Amino acid sequence: MTLFLQAMSDIEELRQSDDVQQELREVQELLARHRVVEGLVHRQEMPRHELVENLVHKQHIAELHHKLDELRPADIAYILEALPLVERLFLWDLVKADRDGEILLEVSDAVRETLIEAMDSHELVAAAEKLDADEIADLAPDLPNEVMQDVFRALPIDEREQLRSAMSYDEDAVGALMDFDVITVREDVTLEVVLRYLRRFEDLPDHTDQLFVVDREECLKGTLPFNRMLITDPDEMVANIMQAEPLTLEPSDKAEAAAQAFERYDLVSAPVVDSQNRLIGRVTVNAVVDYIREESETEHLSRAGLREGEDIFASVWDSVKNRWSWLAVNLVTAFIASRVIGAFEGSIEKLVALAALMPIVAGIGGNSGNQTITMIVRAMALGHVQPESARVLLRKEIGVAMVNGLIWGSLLGCVAWWLYDSVQLGLVMTAAMMLNLIVAATVGVAVPLLRQRLGQDPAIGSSVMITAVTDSGGFFIFLGLATLFLL
Amino acid sequence: MTLFLQAMSDIEELRQSDDVQQELREVQELLARHRVVEGLVHRQEMPRHELVENLVHKQHIAELHHKLDELRPADIAYILEALPLVERLFLWDLVKADRDGEILLEVSDAVRETLIEAMDSHELVAAAEKLDADEIADLAPDLPNEVMQDVFRALPIDEREQLRSAMSYDEDAVGALMDFDVITVREDVTLEVVLRYLRRFEDLPDHTDQLFVVDREECLKGTLPFNRMLITDPDEMVANIMQAEPLTLEPSDKAEAAAQAFERYDLVSAPVVDSQNRLIGRVTVNAVVDYIREESETEHLSRAGLREGEDIFASVWDSVKNRWSWLAVNLVTAFIASRVIGAFEGSIEKLVALAALMPIVAGIGGNSGNQTITMIVRAMALGHVQPESARVLLRKEIGVAMVNGLIWGSLLGCVAWWLYDSVQLGLVMTAAMMLNLIVAATVGVAVPLLRQRLGQDPAIGSSVMITAVTDSGGFFIFLGLATLFLL
Repeated sequence: MTLFLQAMSDIEELRQSDDVQQELREVQELLARHRVVEGLVHRQEMPRHELVENLVHKQHIAELHHKLDELRPADIAYILEALPLVERLFLWDLVKADRDGEILLEVSDAVRETLIEAMDSHELVAAAEKLDADEIADLAPDLPNEVMQDVFRALPIDEREQLRSAMSYDEDAVGALMDFDVITVREDVTLEVVLRYLRRFEDLPDHTDQLFVVDREECLKGTLPFNRMLITDPDEMVANIMQAEPLTLEPSDKAEAAAQAFERYDLVSAPVVDSQNRLIGRVTVNAVVDYIREESETEHLSRAGLREGEDIFASVWDSVKNRWSWLAVNLVTAFIASRVIGAFEGSIEKLVALAALMPIVAGIGGNSGNQTITMIVRAMALGHVQPESARVLLRKEIGVAMVNGLIWGSLLGCVAWWLYDSVQLGLVMTAAMMLNLIVAATVGVAVPLLRQRLGQDPAIGSSVMITAVTDSGGFFIFLGLATLFLL
Repeated sequence: MTLFLQAMSDIEELRQSDDVQQELREVQELLARHRVVEGLVHRQEMPRHELVENLVHKQHIAELHHKLDELRPADIAYILEALPLVERLFLWDLVKADRDGEILLEVSDAVRETLIEAMDSHELVAAAEKLDADEIADLAPDLPNEVMQDVFRALPIDEREQLRSAMSYDEDAVGALMDFDVITVREDVTLEVVLRYLRRFEDLPDHTDQLFVVDREECLKGTLPFNRMLITDPDEMVANIMQAEPLTLEPSDKAEAAAQAFERYDLVSAPVVDSQNRLIGRVTVNAVVDYIREESETEHLSRAGLREGEDIFASVWDSVKNRWSWLAVNLVTAFIASRVIGAFEGSIEKLVALAALMPIVAGIGGNSGNQTITMIVRAMALGHVQPESARVLLRKEIGVAMVNGLIWGSLLGCVAWWLYDSVQLGLVMTAAMMLNLIVAATVGVAVPLLRQRLGQDPAIGSSVMITAVTDSGGFFIFLGLATLFLL
């Protein structure tokens, strides 16, 4: 209880204080009060049956219910993510069943797993059925097989088809971002007719900024942006004001390419067509925004060696599993570097200063190599690197390495000289720094270019690889030079 | 020439092959042909005055002109970024002057600098004048002072005011994302009147998905989404169908908070109001998408120690300047770690195996610490970490560290035992791994929480800091334990 009260006052100090934070605080307060009552029961100061009758308790639950009803699904998702497991599941139970599906779509993967584990298959089927086909497809990987079968059976024929096609696309393809909420019109009608047609709708799908003009075979003839429709005389024909050659996507296109198109041309929605130019669906900017966020997050996490986003309240064991593979890889590279040092133990025994200086050479090489590789991978992702540029880039990076080697190498050479009173040691230090930086630059340019040529993602694991090379390489160069010239 | 031809065939192999890549290839081909002719002049096989008359040459230039006229500003920006400096500036000269401003807005910061350097102040003023106030504000940091003064003087009074206000906001504030393209209506008119009013426009601003309903004092009363307008009977009053309590932003709000709101509520545009609820402008989803991309890029680059995105064709010297500060910081931390080792030189001299094993302890600690800090910083950015969670998180991370320490520490202990045939050395290795992982976990949790409490960005420099601690700490723990128990 005191913990909670203190937390409440602590929270006041938080800098972030937007609306959802406010909501989160209110929910936590209600949960805290609930917990106090539960605590009394637990400590047997109040028998449970009394609690059941307890008006205060009921009132808290009612208040929470009320609060939750007011909140948008995305906000509830946010609150669920910020709560420890016990409170998260307690709150999840209170959410009205008809919003389960929407909320499951909004929470992070790790938190979704905890919520789905707490639902029986009946509840899951009910939740999924309320969603659109493309949304069900998003949930599908987390749902048990028998649930998916039930959901599938419950769908109307055309949505089954949509679900099947939505699930068939690769996670990184446009098909995975696509939804099926398209409104189509014919080109040989007037705007007046279109406007009357629209008024028959109860609601337009979110992000409808344009209608799609198709012929009888569902082939896309153009798009009719609202912006253009609204400034035009209603007697005008659709064919005359539609945008005749709109940007189209195909479901097998890369999602990243679609994201770049949205960014470059400032789109809100774009039609998706098959190879015969038949309209299948559309991609909207909100799906693109989510995709961009997720991509940057995944990249960010994977660079630090996390397999996926972690629920911060995950168990120790889940966290260990999420992180072990990276540690294992690094252990192997560290072991190799250690064996390189092992090969020079004789030299170190004779000149122990080498042991103290060698991590500097390896470390700076790693940093410099990471700078190079990050710059190149980014430029490649943006499509700025042509194969012909390889030579130019390599020359430039080696130039940078030599300048850095000269500056930092000389500096450290002087330090080594000063510390150990040996000009030769200083010179070896300078030479080793310079050489290791050149190795780092070469590998930093070559590895991503080579990986792309082999059809692999140039980003994945690049940081481990460069560090492995500059560590082992740095030790080898420094200790090797020292053995040759000093002993 | 052969270089270029080979490059052309190389480019065919590129996996990326979207439309802009195609355009880029065509432009490069035209440039290549131009270069061949120029090359002839250079090698004096053709006097320059003949060249000027040369029809072939003129034809190439005309083709390039034509090509450029067809392309959208964003595509031209893309092509400029992918070309080496000489060709970039040659092409930049050919771009019609009236599109200069738009293209400058689209290119990356580093490339923009190279383009602006090639323009005289007259051209710059002309380019800036064709832009909206909020766009000029985006360019302002890169423009020379006297150019900005001329631009300012040339603007109408109301736009001067807008420019002044747009420039007054922090880069990370909503004000910096805002534009002034709002269409306002009154609440006491019918939709019919609104529709007639809209038809008087030549064009609606991009991303207009709703009108803003204001009173005589410009106070925001609500928004009128097109989606709702189009399905409603034209005789209905605006007041009856407008969304009365829309999400509003203030110019001083954090841009990140606005981005999260757009993501969470799937917005296309949102009104920006001042503290008296008077409408000032709006934020659109394209500004948000650009912001999200830039943020993730900056974060990504800064983690690798790059101050900003680099033009891949930048000079060696520019690159050195962009990267030196990170290397300097790392040099200092590496030097400290080296001095820690220096303090134990006596121990290493007696047992040289320590030198070979110590980098493993330091390295794994650094990796593990980076995992922890990345996870926590991410959760903090999402607002999931309450101060009260600190204890829970610390306990969990120490748990993870102990499990990892036990697994990897024992493994390496056995390896050390096997390699150097000493049980004691193995035990010291295991204990050191365990302790350094616990240090890494503690620092990984404490540093970001502490930085946030001090009002600093928890992400910046976190990786350097944790590596510094686990390196020096790892060496100290391992060599210290070895000195105590083995010698």
